[in-house]
Amino acid sequence: MKLMRVGEPGRERPALLDGDGVIRDLSDIVDDIAGDVLSPAGLARLAALDTASLPAIDPAIRIGACVGGVQKFACVGLNYADHAAEAGMPVPDEPVLFGKAISALCGPNDEIEQPVGSTKLDYEVELAVIIGTRAKNVTEAEAMDHVAGFAVFNDVSEREFQIHRGGQWIKGKSHDTFGPLGPWLVTRDEAGDIGNLGMFLDVNGGRRQTGSTRTMIFGVAHLVSYISRFMTLEPGDVIPTGTPPGVALGMKEPAWLKPGDVVELGIDGLGRQRQVVVPAA
Amino acid sequence: MKLMRVGEPGRERPALLDGDGVIRDLSDIVDDIAGDVLSPAGLARLAALDTASLPAIDPAIRIGACVGGVQKFACVGLNYADHAAEAGMPVPDEPVLFGKAISALCGPNDEIEQPVGSTKLDYEVELAVIIGTRAKNVTEAEAMDHVAGFAVFNDVSEREFQIHRGGQWIKGKSHDTFGPLGPWLVTRDEAGDIGNLGMFLDVNGGRRQTGSTRTMIFGVAHLVSYISRFMTLEPGDVIPTGTPPGVALGMKEPAWLKPGDVVELGIDGLGRQRQVVVPAA
Repeated sequence: MKLMRVGEPGRERPALLDGDGVIRDLSDIVDDIAGDVLSPAGLARLAALDTASLPAIDPAIRIGACVGGVQKFACVGLNYADHAAEAGMPVPDEPVLFGKAISALCGPNDEIEQPVGSTKLDYEVELAVIIGTRAKNVTEAEAMDHVAGFAVFNDVSEREFQIHRGGQWIKGKSHDTFGPLGPWLVTRDEAGDIGNLGMFLDVNGGRRQTGSTRTMIFGVAHLVSYISRFMTLEPGDVIPTGTPPGVALGMKEPAWLKPGDVVELGIDGLGRQRQVVVPAA
Repeated sequence: MKLMRVGEPGRERPALLDGDGVIRDLSDIVDDIAGDVLSPAGLARLAALDTASLPAIDPAIRIGACVGGVQKFACVGLNYADHAAEAGMPVPDEPVLFGKAISALCGPNDEIEQPVGSTKLDYEVELAVIIGTRAKNVTEAEAMDHVAGFAVFNDVSEREFQIHRGGQWIKGKSHDTFGPLGPWLVTRDEAGDIGNLGMFLDVNGGRRQTGSTRTMIFGVAHLVSYISRFMTLEPGDVIPTGTPPGVALGMKEPAWLKPGDVVELGIDGLGRQRQVVVPAA
């Protein structure tokens, strides 16, 4: 299934994208794409629906983040060897984790705000893992049972804030709009081989990032197991799994994002995002 | 006012501690100590109540975290010069921010879990700021208008995870039970001079930390303003403001916490916490 949330910010309603590409309203079935709805039983209930009987929604509607009630981001850094090299950082021996404020979460096509004082605004196309059931210190063999599905994520970053303002990355990862998620939560059964998905990111129509989840250093099952030793993962939690090369930070003369720029990104089978950069309100 | 949340974990109900030290039930007045209840209007409504008319609650009831619906921690590190020295880190030029998973939040007297694989479990008594209204890029002069009040916080930390497992502190700050908050949210009008509050922390009855908010490097108004440039603060968000000297990390032969240890801590006028260390379930 491809699950979505559509409508005005903060007032999204649950929906799904059917096999014909029609957005179908799930408001009468579930309150939100969140919590227990993400469990195996919750997803099985939705999978059993006759989608043709659900009300169709105008495709021009705004798309929100594909999961509601998200409690936290557990972000993975430097998880592609060639991105670590371009960032001037060593390939890690074990996963690098960092935080992103949950207030950064937004829809896949919402505007990206350039913060006041920002000079080094950057992008990162990433595969996001969406947790389906509580995971605390789970083994790698158990890990995938706790995953509801996957989505496209742009780990928007302000590099001056991240690297040169006091040491912890969260400062450059957390501004409003720095977490576009979606358009869809694609359930595990439909996501294909998540260890071999092509990824891209364009700025103003020019290709910046080309990659594949095939070159991730630590795979999804390992990441879920690893993170669950340090923090308990809850339904709806989002794990952005790192970015392939091509970010502005890695350029000799970095082409930082600026107001008016258009960012487009996508992952095979998980859909596409499009964001316009604007100055922060 | 001293606002509280009492009852079983995940099912706490709102309450207040009256002038005679009696816990009074607020369930019929508000749903939770959260969201709009933390705004100036929400707090004024509670302040106008005749507390003697509210049902009394058995003082033996479990106390939960003093705020509900918390969206995020925005933690400040190395905010006492002598603690920075004992931690072997430079005094920062501007506030150091780091993340703590929201799943770490717990009640002030809940057990502290030692994570599987933990060898360097540590404590940190801290003044926590509780946000009352949304704050995005606010000035220092405006900052205090966005604060609902203050509480005691123990920034429980696993130093091996924090420092030696891949670079970002969040890994050692985020295990379940690493965020005891309370017993009370003490509103601004009752908190006294928050720039001059004594603090202490004992382990097994022996004094480990003695300090005062007087020696903080960056004060509360500065911190709220500063953080609000990098992330939007929402009602109920918690800002732990750093710890004075005396943590195990700073000892020549660190006395790390171990199962069976009893940690007691407090801040003048904000109450006390007591935790027993147990192995993680």
